[in-house]
Amino acid sequence: MFRAIDVIQKKRDGQELTAEEIDFFVSGFGRGAIPDYQASALAMAVYFRGMSAAETLRLTRSMMLNGAVLDLSELAGPKVDKHSTGGVGDKTSLVAAPLAAACGVFVPMISGRSLGHTGGTLDKLESIPRFRVSLSLGEFRSVLHQCGLSYIGQTPDIAPVDRMLYALRDVTATVESLPLIAASIMSKKLAEGIDGLVLDVKCGDGAFLPRLEDARALAHSMLAIGHGEGKRIAALVTNMDQPLGRAVGNALEVAECIETLKGRGPRDLASLSIELAAWMIYLGALAPSIDAARARAREALKSGAGIEKLRQVIDWQEGDPRVCDDLSLLPKAAETIAVRAPRDGRVKRIACRIIGQASMLLGAGRSTVTSRIDPAVGIVLHKKIGDLVIDQEPLLTLHVNDRQPLQRCLDLLDHAFDIEREAPPVAPLVREVILPDEK
Amino acid sequence: MFRAIDVIQKKRDGQELTAEEIDFFVSGFGRGAIPDYQASALAMAVYFRGMSAAETLRLTRSMMLNGAVLDLSELAGPKVDKHSTGGVGDKTSLVAAPLAAACGVFVPMISGRSLGHTGGTLDKLESIPRFRVSLSLGEFRSVLHQCGLSYIGQTPDIAPVDRMLYALRDVTATVESLPLIAASIMSKKLAEGIDGLVLDVKCGDGAFLPRLEDARALAHSMLAIGHGEGKRIAALVTNMDQPLGRAVGNALEVAECIETLKGRGPRDLASLSIELAAWMIYLGALAPSIDAARARAREALKSGAGIEKLRQVIDWQEGDPRVCDDLSLLPKAAETIAVRAPRDGRVKRIACRIIGQASMLLGAGRSTVTSRIDPAVGIVLHKKIGDLVIDQEPLLTLHVNDRQPLQRCLDLLDHAFDIEREAPPVAPLVREVILPDEK
Repeated sequence: MFRAIDVIQKKRDGQELTAEEIDFFVSGFGRGAIPDYQASALAMAVYFRGMSAAETLRLTRSMMLNGAVLDLSELAGPKVDKHSTGGVGDKTSLVAAPLAAACGVFVPMISGRSLGHTGGTLDKLESIPRFRVSLSLGEFRSVLHQCGLSYIGQTPDIAPVDRMLYALRDVTATVESLPLIAASIMSKKLAEGIDGLVLDVKCGDGAFLPRLEDARALAHSMLAIGHGEGKRIAALVTNMDQPLGRAVGNALEVAECIETLKGRGPRDLASLSIELAAWMIYLGALAPSIDAARARAREALKSGAGIEKLRQVIDWQEGDPRVCDDLSLLPKAAETIAVRAPRDGRVKRIACRIIGQASMLLGAGRSTVTSRIDPAVGIVLHKKIGDLVIDQEPLLTLHVNDRQPLQRCLDLLDHAFDIEREAPPVAPLVREVILPDEK
Repeated sequence: MFRAIDVIQKKRDGQELTAEEIDFFVSGFGRGAIPDYQASALAMAVYFRGMSAAETLRLTRSMMLNGAVLDLSELAGPKVDKHSTGGVGDKTSLVAAPLAAACGVFVPMISGRSLGHTGGTLDKLESIPRFRVSLSLGEFRSVLHQCGLSYIGQTPDIAPVDRMLYALRDVTATVESLPLIAASIMSKKLAEGIDGLVLDVKCGDGAFLPRLEDARALAHSMLAIGHGEGKRIAALVTNMDQPLGRAVGNALEVAECIETLKGRGPRDLASLSIELAAWMIYLGALAPSIDAARARAREALKSGAGIEKLRQVIDWQEGDPRVCDDLSLLPKAAETIAVRAPRDGRVKRIACRIIGQASMLLGAGRSTVTSRIDPAVGIVLHKKIGDLVIDQEPLLTLHVNDRQPLQRCLDLLDHAFDIEREAPPVAPLVREVILPDEK
């Protein structure tokens, strides 16, 4: 019989835990036999000692199996999801998933909510009037079957130990551990019953892990887990040095996604969405090469199949599909306020995280898990890195309902744009594509 | 206002905590505002990152001040205690304290109980019929005043946060952290209202910290704390490569102490007890030099003043003082079993920890804090390191009541003695005397 203290001590002393030890700890913690204070001590020991690939895989598997795992094998096609580590204005789930689904990929997307400076897919979808994300697993399966795409939130049944452990890590300074992050993400994704997964791992100022090497290490860790579980998997390490697209805030982002699916969206959002959809199609074995998959994704955008898929899923999930044709049906803020350029020049740098924080302050995001979201508010960028600006030209428009946080928000945004005579060339959006090491 | 998570994160990232942060955490944990899972995460971060001398001092002070601190200033003489980090057959508290008290030192001794392979002063004293260690703080003060010496257990009032933290560390693999050990010991000792303290820091196989360098580091840490709190303090780093004296087990050890105070005890026990008493006398400023103090301690033994002091304290604490003249009044085991030498030779090594564990198995110690002690049982050594032995000569005598653990005990003891043709010279008992760095 194992004892929790021995497992903690073994990890503390830098030894590799066995599969049985990890299973013992995860299931014991899950059913309350191992108390929080032992789990937090183990998490801190993992923070310092790390985990081997085998340990991380087992932790993921164990957290996944201590909960419901969906069986979607009756769906007549590949099941591929996409996961982003989160960013500012990061709305590709509402563009890439419809494009991939329009090409025959089943996309069972279990998403999260906004927290801190980053947004969340569920909050964006809920800005569509009456859209319901809290489907039962049966309804989820049914929508998927009919429509090829469904969006829901994490249910209490899926990886419940991850939910408990994450809540504990959040208050014990043990969030920033790569193996724990990788296991947390992957335990939920692998429970979705997918064949393949595309990871969008953000780096840069607006990302959870700003440094490229950390993002790359996280990508490798998640790839190893997915590959170890027999999934087709790829990771794109992408730039989050400025918001993706121009809109930050829930209804504003939905509107931008609709525009993008109609071919009128910002270039960066369209191009990353097509890239992600292409990888979903390719991993779903619906195209012989990534180039062919890219062509299919582009065609789905051009033909309107993508916007039609979004319209369908909104309809299936009880939202008002007319928003796809009439953006005025989305919630609208009471007033708009422009932030203007202090001088002529070029945008050299945008403080991406600050834009996310300012948007959160306006009510578009959550400072704590219990904060309420205002779907209408947010920020629209008129200028991005490299753009030419003229003195007093608008850089940003704030969409405001509550004026109370406005001054703090404006103070934050005061330093959000660096405007210089010259700007460096813009870094490519996709920094790296990483595939698992074949063994 | 501080937040617990920020304090944990700061320590996790290797930064030094401020006095205010430490006070916030200690008092918050003490009153239940900071939960166990944050305290265990901080303890694990301290395990990895350590603590500066200033942090350790503040932690000690904060744990001490979040509880009762005795004021013994009305006692007309120096108040000096002695603390040992624990060992096997380590019974000097019952010899050194009476000798020092006989020389005019007030000894307010708050002691612990046995745990694992090490013994505890309270359990030894309780083998004396009717001896009561659970005095109130008022009774403790009264006995001290009348007799110059009193022995009690840690009360709930003294350093309660240390008690809570220790219980938590014990189940989260965070016991083995030098600053936490030092702060735990010193927070209790400094609450005793003492002017001076002699530390007996054990090293070797039977010690809590076997390695000399760890024992030395712990000694330095405790000295810095005591000195920082304005106490006169010294540390003796002493050998625990074999049991001290010959008896291991509660009543057996009391008998050996009485014999020692009558000048008939084992040399090592007598000599270390005199050394510790001498340092108590010297730190109490009752002798102009350590040599003069040593002479006074020896004289207290020779004159019978030491045994008289022990008799007095037993009487004051409601025990039967006649044990000092009639050892048969102590509890006696039902049978004795000899363990014999397998060959001729010299004792090269004794597995000190195993002897402690075997004694615990017989019932003399606790495997968990709730185990019951049998005061009569234990082990008497007939041979020590360097002694000549003849084939089949008794090495040990087991004093046994319950035969159930006997075979496991004998199996353990099978490898307790290394007997070779030649034995190395015996290491000196006192390895080092360390005094605080004067600043």
